Amino acid sequence: MSTLRAPNPDHQAPEGFQYFPPPLEPAEPGARRTPAEEARTLLAHSTVATLATLSDDGTPWASMVVFGTLPDGAPVLFVSTLAEHGRNLERDARASLMVAAPITNPDPLQSGRVTLAGRFVKPEGAREEEAREAAYKAMPYGRTYAKFGDFSLWVLEVERVRWVGGYGIMGSDDAAAYKAATVDPTAPNADHAVSHLNEDHADALLQISQKLAGYPDATAAVATGIDRYGMDLSIDTPRGKAPARVGFAEPATAADGLRGATVELAKKARA
Amino acid sequence: MSTLRAPNPDHQAPEGFQYFPPPLEPAEPGARRTPAEEARTLLAHSTVATLATLSDDGTPWASMVVFGTLPDGAPVLFVSTLAEHGRNLERDARASLMVAAPITNPDPLQSGRVTLAGRFVKPEGAREEEAREAAYKAMPYGRTYAKFGDFSLWVLEVERVRWVGGYGIMGSDDAAAYKAATVDPTAPNADHAVSHLNEDHADALLQISQKLAGYPDATAAVATGIDRYGMDLSIDTPRGKAPARVGFAEPATAADGLRGATVELAKKARA
Repeated sequence: MSTLRAPNPDHQAPEGFQYFPPPLEPAEPGARRTPAEEARTLLAHSTVATLATLSDDGTPWASMVVFGTLPDGAPVLFVSTLAEHGRNLERDARASLMVAAPITNPDPLQSGRVTLAGRFVKPEGAREEEAREAAYKAMPYGRTYAKFGDFSLWVLEVERVRWVGGYGIMGSDDAAAYKAATVDPTAPNADHAVSHLNEDHADALLQISQKLAGYPDATAAVATGIDRYGMDLSIDTPRGKAPARVGFAEPATAADGLRGATVELAKKARA
Repeated sequence: MSTLRAPNPDHQAPEGFQYFPPPLEPAEPGARRTPAEEARTLLAHSTVATLATLSDDGTPWASMVVFGTLPDGAPVLFVSTLAEHGRNLERDARASLMVAAPITNPDPLQSGRVTLAGRFVKPEGAREEEAREAAYKAMPYGRTYAKFGDFSLWVLEVERVRWVGGYGIMGSDDAAAYKAATVDPTAPNADHAVSHLNEDHADALLQISQKLAGYPDATAAVATGIDRYGMDLSIDTPRGKAPARVGFAEPATAADGLRGATVELAKKARA
């Protein structure tokens, strides 16, 4: 649900290539979630991922897994050594896990995804109990397979986080940032808020684009995303379509905080 | 859309563990698609995958990619060296690609997925042109990025195929089998055929289960999948729920061949 945003200056673009029309007036850069916050939020709302492990010949092996998540954000797997990834982990616990947001955009590359890289460990003591519960919650047959000798519980000790939110929107974070980050409480309401804004408040989105996003020549605007820090817009101008980000005055702190925050933004644009 | 099937004898199951009630009468094992055919069919209907590559420290890196497919089944990527996977491929072209069917089952582990492992090469000559067209077809911005110096075209030379269709349903194939396999022509109609069978032909499914699948004590049955070789059933019995596979007399060869094949099966069960 992200849209084309800031061009990456590192691209070897052809001379004079224009990504999208720039703002005509200076606009405050809208705050957004950190890569670690994006990752924590994606994991909190998913149980399916792709695991990359090392096969016995040293080549990288991609496989689908179902995962649980511990309160500190660590992903949990419960896998069999009958599966290649299970055997791989026993031999070499270095791995990464890719979690993607549900793809709703016609262009999947505009969809959010995160890779968590690190090393899997077999948890012990209280951590094992906690991990087991997290795995069972995600796996309908988890409790059944607990009786099988070929299944093991693994917890990923996350060492680095790479988030891609769409074209030109990406970033990295380290283990400490990932542990410290929190899940965006507004995430479960984001899709509904975006639909509601586009269906019933096109006028407010246009005013926000003209007054707060730096596009006084905007002729129409749609919301393409929203989170506790602000909203993403796709703005029509006579110069072409432009993506923009507008931040809230204060981050929304509760699940139902998006409505109040967008009303504030609309008021500010009207003032 | 697969369901619990044959138990894997290699599982370290607890003594006396029963996966599901066995058939009461001998039934012909229903033919099914080979792992290579499953892979060719999955790739033909998807453009999103997870790539596993090797990062500079030798650890496996999972990342989302959009891919095209060549007529011989080889997947094509068009990626930037600004992305970690793009840099990884330049350094070490060994990789694997995981493609999953859309997840419709409440238990994602019952859903089909395939891993293709091999080595990426930069295509040349006519192969390059063909690969470029395949990539553009899958990537909305492909033609735009063709002008960027940091993008490269890669074709996976598939060395091995691993398919998992659900619990206990899996298999492997080699490069030759993958190249020789064809896409199941009935795949685009499978979801509709399953819905139609379950909505309008519960009686026929029950008869097929009782007469052809080896479950004379079946009390109800639903179709959980269908393909050119036959159908998958989930059968209710007083002894519990059982998965079963029933093959068609002849494989369906055309896109619209599922109707005729299931009518034949229903007739055979009634006879």
